[in-house]
Amino acid sequence: MREVSISGIGSTNFGKLSDKSISQLVIDASLAAIKDSKIDRREIGALYLGNFVGGTLTGQEVLAGLACDDLSIGNIPCTKVEGACASGGIAFRHAYLAIATGTCDAALVIGVEKMTHCQNDKITQALNAALDQKTDFMSGLTFPGLYAMAWRSYEHEYSASRHEISEVIIKNKNNGLKNPLAQVKHEVSHDDILNSPLIADPLRLFDCCPTSDGASALVLVASELIDRNSEADIRIAASVQTSGPGRVCGNKSLHSFDATVVAGAKAFEISGISPKDIDLVELHDCFSIAEVLDCEDLGLCERGLGLSLAAEGKSHVDGQMPINPSGGLLAKGHPVGATGVSQIYEATLQLRGQHKNQVPNPTFAMTHNLGGTGVACSVNILKRET
Amino acid sequence: MREVSISGIGSTNFGKLSDKSISQLVIDASLAAIKDSKIDRREIGALYLGNFVGGTLTGQEVLAGLACDDLSIGNIPCTKVEGACASGGIAFRHAYLAIATGTCDAALVIGVEKMTHCQNDKITQALNAALDQKTDFMSGLTFPGLYAMAWRSYEHEYSASRHEISEVIIKNKNNGLKNPLAQVKHEVSHDDILNSPLIADPLRLFDCCPTSDGASALVLVASELIDRNSEADIRIAASVQTSGPGRVCGNKSLHSFDATVVAGAKAFEISGISPKDIDLVELHDCFSIAEVLDCEDLGLCERGLGLSLAAEGKSHVDGQMPINPSGGLLAKGHPVGATGVSQIYEATLQLRGQHKNQVPNPTFAMTHNLGGTGVACSVNILKRET
Repeated sequence: MREVSISGIGSTNFGKLSDKSISQLVIDASLAAIKDSKIDRREIGALYLGNFVGGTLTGQEVLAGLACDDLSIGNIPCTKVEGACASGGIAFRHAYLAIATGTCDAALVIGVEKMTHCQNDKITQALNAALDQKTDFMSGLTFPGLYAMAWRSYEHEYSASRHEISEVIIKNKNNGLKNPLAQVKHEVSHDDILNSPLIADPLRLFDCCPTSDGASALVLVASELIDRNSEADIRIAASVQTSGPGRVCGNKSLHSFDATVVAGAKAFEISGISPKDIDLVELHDCFSIAEVLDCEDLGLCERGLGLSLAAEGKSHVDGQMPINPSGGLLAKGHPVGATGVSQIYEATLQLRGQHKNQVPNPTFAMTHNLGGTGVACSVNILKRET
Repeated sequence: MREVSISGIGSTNFGKLSDKSISQLVIDASLAAIKDSKIDRREIGALYLGNFVGGTLTGQEVLAGLACDDLSIGNIPCTKVEGACASGGIAFRHAYLAIATGTCDAALVIGVEKMTHCQNDKITQALNAALDQKTDFMSGLTFPGLYAMAWRSYEHEYSASRHEISEVIIKNKNNGLKNPLAQVKHEVSHDDILNSPLIADPLRLFDCCPTSDGASALVLVASELIDRNSEADIRIAASVQTSGPGRVCGNKSLHSFDATVVAGAKAFEISGISPKDIDLVELHDCFSIAEVLDCEDLGLCERGLGLSLAAEGKSHVDGQMPINPSGGLLAKGHPVGATGVSQIYEATLQLRGQHKNQVPNPTFAMTHNLGGTGVACSVNILKRET
């Protein structure tokens, strides 16, 4: 397997982007990534695009091929991949594999979603396609319901106070204030959270990520082709994709996702590093409690201690293990198919030392993207090559 | 790149399968393919699933991960891919690449669609997601409209009689009569075709493939692991995926698809064989005229001579270049995401010498799967290893 580097990154703002079609979001992010990489676009040999509900909410499929046509890249293989909220991470891994295995020397990865133009009931219906229709959906489950159950299950085992979970939200909203691309641009207090509407007990509005439009893109190249004199060399030390149970009853616990546990362990094994080497993490905080579960599943802290990371300042930008310095899904936003790509955009900016909410001098970054009831997961470890 | 073989094949019937959910179709085809391959399912290291309109028409996404869970395969990477009608072919190529590049030793490929439970207007709307929404869709284009234009353009350049085009339909419907999985189980005459309703002038009902439910599946393995004493070894001599213009105006001609031209030429280059070596072809006859255009685009005959192949008997099962001995999309049916996988199922049966409509002693088979207005294409060449 060849070494692969991230040579270009681009992203739209996340938020309500009413004046842009889904295809335009793709073009904007892609052109920025191609420009940043300084690559001749004719060198791109594969294109992968992560998208989840484009067909249902915008009526537009074949987004990968349309992107290639719009960008005048040529007759290269273009593939849309779908794994619910993990679609972007899956797209990234396939572009990585295409280069690592020698299929091509450069590849474009895009993640995109456009959702905010639809009514909430239509959005919920579209997102529910990530549930098994015969079981979980029929039982009345929704994603807020899933994470509300996870919270109850976690608190039953370890105890979890509203105050501690709110610290996760406050941290991520504060991080988002420093991210120019973030959708949510306001501070929240413990009282704001307590007074926000109940969505699925115990989850309140501020425990939930917003509905978002947005696209992110990356250019990956074989590391041997990187001009190391002119640019930071951000390498892919591990790119892991796993699957997990397709129904909520399948996981070993209601407050843990098998797909994350397996992916996290494998990413550490492949990269040869351990959690203490990780300088920052962008993980899938679709709900506040998710950040707690995810960092435990990834092995970043012991079981039962995930809740204390934000409250004790450890997961803050200046802490031992900064988590979601971008603001995460809670503040940056969650245009579903874009998220896995956006996380790598953010991590790359950090490793380059160019982030507006910079973690001090990072070498290793981890990203984590989770789909459905844990049915699909992508975990990556990036390294700044010195 | 390692050699890759097709060790197991499975398929549901194609047609109106009202008593099966989309997930059940996936399970049925997959279990048949796994049983046929005699593989221990825990040896499967990757799963690719081609599907186009599952989210829109059935409300079920994450089909790749659900399949893995239903089949108890483990936490392997599971990916749904989408490229409109070429989704199945794209899934196949990715499973091929996973093994050829050494990422895993065995992979499961599935293609599926469930459509017949929906009203025609909803089906048309879902399929139109393969058109660029800003241009072709806004102009009022539909897929029958696209192929009606192609027919007019072809006839303008080469002349094309209704009678000759009907010979394609009659051949494929007759082939379908011998295929136990085929949806359309009746002969048609020239008069039947002439008297069928006009859909998009000059296309009549019998010029169009039916709306279908169905799933097909394949198990691929590294050829070095095949037990050549106990089974036929069907190798993948070339697996090519291309993209093409995302809008109808982008192709060089209204009666040719660039993505097919590039994919066909590349498949011959990789395999080192020429069109005269091909013993049978399963190609994308979504409409009668499509078979004519496709065999010219693939280089199987000279430009302007595609129309005569059926009329002169050359593309019949006992002809020089049998085309769609399965009945093709016109008779076997076209459960969209399944088609690219189904074509390889059919070609493999032929190369094993086990088809109910057997081509005499074939060594090489070609498959061709085309999406949208030619935005995505997959071409494969299979070889029986003697």
